[in-house]
Amino acid sequence: MQDKGISQAVIGRLPRYLRYLGDLKENGVERVSSQELSKLMSVTASQIRQDFNNFGGFGQQGYGYNVDYLYTEISKILGLDRQYNFVIIGAGNLGRALGNYLNFERRGFIFKGIFDKDPELEGREVRGVKIKNISELESFLKANNIDIAVLTIPKTGAVGLVDVLVSNGIRAIWNFAHVDLDVPEGVQVENVHLSDSLMKLSYNISRYEGSKN
Amino acid sequence: MQDKGISQAVIGRLPRYLRYLGDLKENGVERVSSQELSKLMSVTASQIRQDFNNFGGFGQQGYGYNVDYLYTEISKILGLDRQYNFVIIGAGNLGRALGNYLNFERRGFIFKGIFDKDPELEGREVRGVKIKNISELESFLKANNIDIAVLTIPKTGAVGLVDVLVSNGIRAIWNFAHVDLDVPEGVQVENVHLSDSLMKLSYNISRYEGSKN
Repeated sequence: MQDKGISQAVIGRLPRYLRYLGDLKENGVERVSSQELSKLMSVTASQIRQDFNNFGGFGQQGYGYNVDYLYTEISKILGLDRQYNFVIIGAGNLGRALGNYLNFERRGFIFKGIFDKDPELEGREVRGVKIKNISELESFLKANNIDIAVLTIPKTGAVGLVDVLVSNGIRAIWNFAHVDLDVPEGVQVENVHLSDSLMKLSYNISRYEGSKN
Repeated sequence: MQDKGISQAVIGRLPRYLRYLGDLKENGVERVSSQELSKLMSVTASQIRQDFNNFGGFGQQGYGYNVDYLYTEISKILGLDRQYNFVIIGAGNLGRALGNYLNFERRGFIFKGIFDKDPELEGREVRGVKIKNISELESFLKANNIDIAVLTIPKTGAVGLVDVLVSNGIRAIWNFAHVDLDVPEGVQVENVHLSDSLMKLSYNISRYEGSKN
């Protein structure tokens, strides 16, 4: 396929391109050169051209890229030209925060259900979706076409859930649990380990302090 | 300094080592070989040795590494041998979720304040910390020794805040706002762009589907 062998590093940069192109669109900009994009995003123009060449270059002609076209093509590459249904498992603050985040909806990620083991939370609503007991998860997955499970529960619970999710058709797990999940081939996992990110921050703080001594 | 020129890729892997070593400690394991660690973490043993050699190798002698020693040394490298005070700006679900996350406290990240522009939220408590109005932020930063600001507000608000934060001694920003921040040299920024992470997931889903056709 077209993007065979494209590194996750390149893929990881596409959402950022999309963000800047979205801003340009909002500002009514119709064409942008790699030099302009380079200034905006503070990456080199050659980096941008290299990244884009992975996908055929997006036909830069005359003066720069067509912003609309570029935005649409990158959206397609990122699989944003379709809808994904997701459920959230864990209705704590983080789970509710993600359920309430409307931008996901705009991108085609549709919030279908939220589950928790705490009976206290049952029936409360997150953006119009009632919190269900975790015991209803399996039957819910069988009855609905859910693509993505978002895990916002402690690591012990997360590991035990993977089999239920995978055997009921979940194709991707967005994992906020502080553990690496072991999934069969073909099931995608994207980890958001918040503590890891915070540790990188403390590393960079102390390294900078150190470099001053 | 010892870690001069160590790539962020290596640094990015250290928290994961720390997580596995923490589990080994909890299970009372005293020594571990790079081969065992390699199996546990499904990375190659040579990758592990290469990573550790950046820091002098952590003196693997005889049978493997001393788990306690390795855990302590990696903690030090990550700057976890000291405390950091942080404030959260944006008391929505995400901000409150981060304020309630006790693991940060265990790592030495101390939750000192939380601010929001919404007067409705003023006075409510997040883990014993009263939500203050954003108008009190500057005086709070002057009166307290805050290292890290966590931004859980929309991008428009985030950009405008950077000057206030930096000019009042903030050394690091943990940025959840969906925008790249422009900060002076010496101020550390770690971005958590949740939408970007979700797009990588949709890319990998659709790529996998595509590869099956």
